[in-house]
Amino acid sequence: MRPSGRTLGQIRPVTITRQFTAHAEGSILIEFGETKVICTATVEEGVPRFLKGQGKGWVTAEYGMLPRSTHTRMRREAAGGKQGGRTMEIQRLIARALRAAVDLKALGENTITIDCDVIQADGGTRTASITGACVALVDALNYMRAKEIIKTNPLKHMIAAVSVGIYKGQPIADLEYLEDSEAETDMNVVMTETGKLIEVQGTAEEEPFSFDEMNEMMQLAKHGINELFDIQKAALS
Amino acid sequence: MRPSGRTLGQIRPVTITRQFTAHAEGSILIEFGETKVICTATVEEGVPRFLKGQGKGWVTAEYGMLPRSTHTRMRREAAGGKQGGRTMEIQRLIARALRAAVDLKALGENTITIDCDVIQADGGTRTASITGACVALVDALNYMRAKEIIKTNPLKHMIAAVSVGIYKGQPIADLEYLEDSEAETDMNVVMTETGKLIEVQGTAEEEPFSFDEMNEMMQLAKHGINELFDIQKAALS
Amino acid sequence: MRPSGRTLGQIRPVTITRQFTAHAEGSILIEFGETKVICTATVEEGVPRFLKGQGKGWVTAEYGMLPRSTHTRMRREAAGGKQGGRTMEIQRLIARALRAAVDLKALGENTITIDCDVIQADGGTRTASITGACVALVDALNYMRAKEIIKTNPLKHMIAAVSVGIYKGQPIADLEYLEDSEAETDMNVVMTETGKLIEVQGTAEEEPFSFDEMNEMMQLAKHGINELFDIQKAALS
Amino acid sequence: MRPSGRTLGQIRPVTITRQFTAHAEGSILIEFGETKVICTATVEEGVPRFLKGQGKGWVTAEYGMLPRSTHTRMRREAAGGKQGGRTMEIQRLIARALRAAVDLKALGENTITIDCDVIQADGGTRTASITGACVALVDALNYMRAKEIIKTNPLKHMIAAVSVGIYKGQPIADLEYLEDSEAETDMNVVMTETGKLIEVQGTAEEEPFSFDEMNEMMQLAKHGINELFDIQKAALS
Amino acid sequence: MRPSGRTLGQIRPVTITRQFTAHAEGSILIEFGETKVICTATVEEGVPRFLKGQGKGWVTAEYGMLPRSTHTRMRREAAGGKQGGRTMEIQRLIARALRAAVDLKALGENTITIDCDVIQADGGTRTASITGACVALVDALNYMRAKEIIKTNPLKHMIAAVSVGIYKGQPIADLEYLEDSEAETDMNVVMTETGKLIEVQGTAEEEPFSFDEMNEMMQLAKHGINELFDIQKAALS
Amino acid sequence: MRPSGRTLGQIRPVTITRQFTAHAEGSILIEFGETKVICTATVEEGVPRFLKGQGKGWVTAEYGMLPRSTHTRMRREAAGGKQGGRTMEIQRLIARALRAAVDLKALGENTITIDCDVIQADGGTRTASITGACVALVDALNYMRAKEIIKTNPLKHMIAAVSVGIYKGQPIADLEYLEDSEAETDMNVVMTETGKLIEVQGTAEEEPFSFDEMNEMMQLAKHGINELFDIQKAALS
Repeated sequence: MRPSGRTLGQIRPVTITRQFTAHAEGSILIEFGETKVICTATVEEGVPRFLKGQGKGWVTAEYGMLPRSTHTRMRREAAGGKQGGRTMEIQRLIARALRAAVDLKALGENTITIDCDVIQADGGTRTASITGACVALVDALNYMRAKEIIKTNPLKHMIAAVSVGIYKGQPIADLEYLEDSEAETDMNVVMTETGKLIEVQGTAEEEPFSFDEMNEMMQLAKHGINELFDIQKAALS
Repeated sequence: MRPSGRTLGQIRPVTITRQFTAHAEGSILIEFGETKVICTATVEEGVPRFLKGQGKGWVTAEYGMLPRSTHTRMRREAAGGKQGGRTMEIQRLIARALRAAVDLKALGENTITIDCDVIQADGGTRTASITGACVALVDALNYMRAKEIIKTNPLKHMIAAVSVGIYKGQPIADLEYLEDSEAETDMNVVMTETGKLIEVQGTAEEEPFSFDEMNEMMQLAKHGINELFDIQKAALS
Repeated sequence: MRPSGRTLGQIRPVTITRQFTAHAEGSILIEFGETKVICTATVEEGVPRFLKGQGKGWVTAEYGMLPRSTHTRMRREAAGGKQGGRTMEIQRLIARALRAAVDLKALGENTITIDCDVIQADGGTRTASITGACVALVDALNYMRAKEIIKTNPLKHMIAAVSVGIYKGQPIADLEYLEDSEAETDMNVVMTETGKLIEVQGTAEEEPFSFDEMNEMMQLAKHGINELFDIQKAALS
Repeated sequence: MRPSGRTLGQIRPVTITRQFTAHAEGSILIEFGETKVICTATVEEGVPRFLKGQGKGWVTAEYGMLPRSTHTRMRREAAGGKQGGRTMEIQRLIARALRAAVDLKALGENTITIDCDVIQADGGTRTASITGACVALVDALNYMRAKEIIKTNPLKHMIAAVSVGIYKGQPIADLEYLEDSEAETDMNVVMTETGKLIEVQGTAEEEPFSFDEMNEMMQLAKHGINELFDIQKAALS
Repeated sequence: MRPSGRTLGQIRPVTITRQFTAHAEGSILIEFGETKVICTATVEEGVPRFLKGQGKGWVTAEYGMLPRSTHTRMRREAAGGKQGGRTMEIQRLIARALRAAVDLKALGENTITIDCDVIQADGGTRTASITGACVALVDALNYMRAKEIIKTNPLKHMIAAVSVGIYKGQPIADLEYLEDSEAETDMNVVMTETGKLIEVQGTAEEEPFSFDEMNEMMQLAKHGINELFDIQKAALS
Repeated sequence: MRPSGRTLGQIRPVTITRQFTAHAEGSILIEFGETKVICTATVEEGVPRFLKGQGKGWVTAEYGMLPRSTHTRMRREAAGGKQGGRTMEIQRLIARALRAAVDLKALGENTITIDCDVIQADGGTRTASITGACVALVDALNYMRAKEIIKTNPLKHMIAAVSVGIYKGQPIADLEYLEDSEAETDMNVVMTETGKLIEVQGTAEEEPFSFDEMNEMMQLAKHGINELFDIQKAALS
């Protein structure tokens, strides 16, 4: 039923390439099938003004798409003079999810900025971003420990994310663009490796969904994300 | 346990005042306890460029807070030169939810713009906005039918929304500011009067939440929203 | 001759509701007939950079209109990315007028920000804003004295404002929208309760006006504003 | 009493140089003492969207100051990314005043844009701008008649403007910077050569002013502006 | 003498990967040593307004750097709300250079937009961009011919670019970051495969350079660029 | 062959008027034929943040054109909300060139800002700006020495600039607008009075140019700039 021939709960092949670019403290390329995102983690001393003097760190994120990462060219946001609402929404989601993975006290007064830049889009860019960003974050934390900027590991648990949805009346996992553009419902789920939820964002694009459908989607998400944890761990080992 | 003495699932007193201001085709004041939002619906001929010539209408929304609707004064977004990420996220949510309530074909090539302006904030401004906006929308659709701009009623079903969360380890409904600022988890649920889901947005602010906690919150949301449907209907009759 | 049947010098019924919203140090709703403006006064420690260390305070103002406070919807300025020229002009006028009412030295290094937000417009929004803002300012100054932030009352005198104009060849006071949109000349006058002038802004919209017409308008303004001082005092007592 | 030794009602020497730059349809340099403003008038076919198809023309104005036209350097508005409130206020004033001098119907569907750029500031830039702009406008209208773009002269009457104020307790005319920065009250008056008023904008900078003081200032303005009409006519003959 | 051990005129290893991303009509990754740039070419019907109806096409370019393509993180231009002066300067250079390679008449009323996005920077990003962009452009033109959007090949000649400079008193070619940051002079040269010049931009960063030094740099540029033409051709064959 | 009858290498009459406006530490009007630019130099204590504490000064520049300095009116950049790419490119060029003329250490922690504002344009505005800015800079440095802000003269050498190009197949110097708009190639050259190069920016607008043509243009530039040094010196003596 799915264009790719995947089973309902089957996620796309996922690859994670570490040290993808040279300068960042963490830099990975994550591929969810044809969706490709560069995630870099930058470590900087100091915190935003509202946190100063509290002995806590900060984790933030920015998201962008290359203008021609998509089927037709999108306007470059820098040229347009502002980030659109969708971009803002996604980068706020990524940042919140990552902060939930980190003990900000253990980070000291340091800031980690994660940049997620989509170089090729085929659905699921925000879930790929979160899943990849967590690996870049781990590399940055390792860097900080190696440099003795921090003494303990601030990572509370890995996080990963997958999209689920209702497509042609059936719940499916990890929607690619063709599925996403026709899905009745689209839901993004972020989970910890301890099996708990960080974010659930479900939207009825075409048709309201029932509580039962929601539960089914949540189960698919759980299985998909558990697979992602294995892939993250393999990449990090 | 709750500062207000409410039971876990109890929502605040809700009042809806129709014809709150004079010029808009729909104009209501909605109060969720101390949270007060003016929702106006504006009917205009024509649709945005991307929809032209398709014989379909459009529903969109904008959200704002008066600078001193909050405990401390927020910067006026117009003076700052842009709408913040939170504002963008909320107005996109309101607009998506309302579009899910309307048959855009039956609307013809007309646009309804809902403005939700918070004049006093005490938690739950986005759910109050959605619940109130739906009533303003109904008034605007009635206006359109009275003026014979449309022939059939484009409303598919009423929608309403409530926030739920985990507060001091317990699931509760309709968080006021004091609860919201300390909640471990915060979730906004938008539902149709037919018992289906339009949007679910859950965020672990402090602590990841379990699948069971999520289910409990969903049940509280369902009951709270059903009460809101009664209040909407009373206001409209 | 006037659409409302008012006499030439008769102002509209004016009501002032104090403590209109909960959080601000001063918060009033002022109604000049169908024109309704929320004026809040916010007290904050510190002054803008150009005043630092001079032992003086500051009073400033911002003005906005809800998008559908008017007959047809105006673009939301926050969405447009800037405040328009008319908004700037009005908020500069409000701020100047209020500063003329206050002994800035007696205020200490504190800032009072007045927000005037029009929720329904029917002509005279700037004069209603000034008249209401002065009451909100008094409430904020009372708050400061109660909290012992200041020791003496910085208020030099109450101020109030009314519009006057030439309509169908006759000078009239307190123009409502129907009159304003057809007036040959429009003038806004701000006065102190001691009978002196703070601001006079007269504009020939259609026809130049004579020195005699100006004098007649000034007399109408004087009488109208004196009535407003009575209403302000009644509200404050 | 005045730093320059001028009498109370005496305006500064005023010179108007026509054809100051080469490309504009009207281009003059106006000097009010040490205040120097370049005013150019540009004729373009067509009108702004809100006027299309009404058979009427439009006159608009923009105002700017070279960054170092003032004692200390001001930030270049183009670099700052927006025009400040003072700039907006002034250019709206100039444009309104000029429109009051022109029969827009006789202009046909054409737009005249007046640019007033201050190259040296010493008080009174807005009144110098208006007085000079009117001459540039006349040159542009003459150009239009010579090119047979219009058939009749749309000019209803010349306009000119002067500032008046209360300085050290005395009403004076045409304030230079030293006076302006210490004046208790500052008023700008725009008049027609037929002795009627176009704009009156009086502001109590330090001290409220009485109705009598206002009248005295108005008389000084009248005399000063009448002198300006002579200077304009001499320049145009 | 050079950090990499290269001879004075030796350029870095250059690789060009075609079809680097999936959606664009031309998409390449170009590497000048450690400098890596994605260049995509997008073909769209129509031309900018100023060209409409002239039967000519348009070629334009945009340039960006991922925030962490550099040693320390740069602010994301989209978040800052505008493109900086350096970005503007570079993208104007790229666009001008490419337009010089194309017969715009033969392109018909179509627009090709080249996006050059630096994912890793080590000096020479603008020359790598131009050299890569020309290959992406060729792929886009081939696509247009295959789709019969155009009938003849609008390419007049290949172009390529290299930087040259004075480093420790010696002229060198293709500066990497370490050299660039210490160079006395930096010059970018764009040439056609027919041996003619498109752009020469030389800047004395530290020390003015002599006419003789300029000639020496020009010779190095010529040799370096000729090597680049071989690499472009190999990539395209 | 040239519209003005000039010989190929002949530059236009150049005049430099010092003390053109009153407030700036250096203020000149420079005329290259019909091109007229006001250059002011402003001296301010302190340096931009990135230079603080290094004991060095800074020289920067901004460029603007009055809207009607050109044949048709250009949009005012302040009204448009940003400086265009061309403006950015030019002001960066002017600033770099001037910094190359100054020993920033000898300047102390002071900043000189040069504003170049074109009041009439006829080609060559950037080279006129640089040539004039250098004179304004000298006046500002003299002011600083007279005020004992600096002890030694930070000027390393005078700089001046001229445009050269290929017009109707021939190399010419100092292009006026008519020539510039038809030139095949346009090159701006900045030189020191010691005969060395600061900037060379050559662009093939229509036709690529040969190495020989480049050399011929460079020779014309050298002669033209040497004339400019004489004119600068005459103005300064």
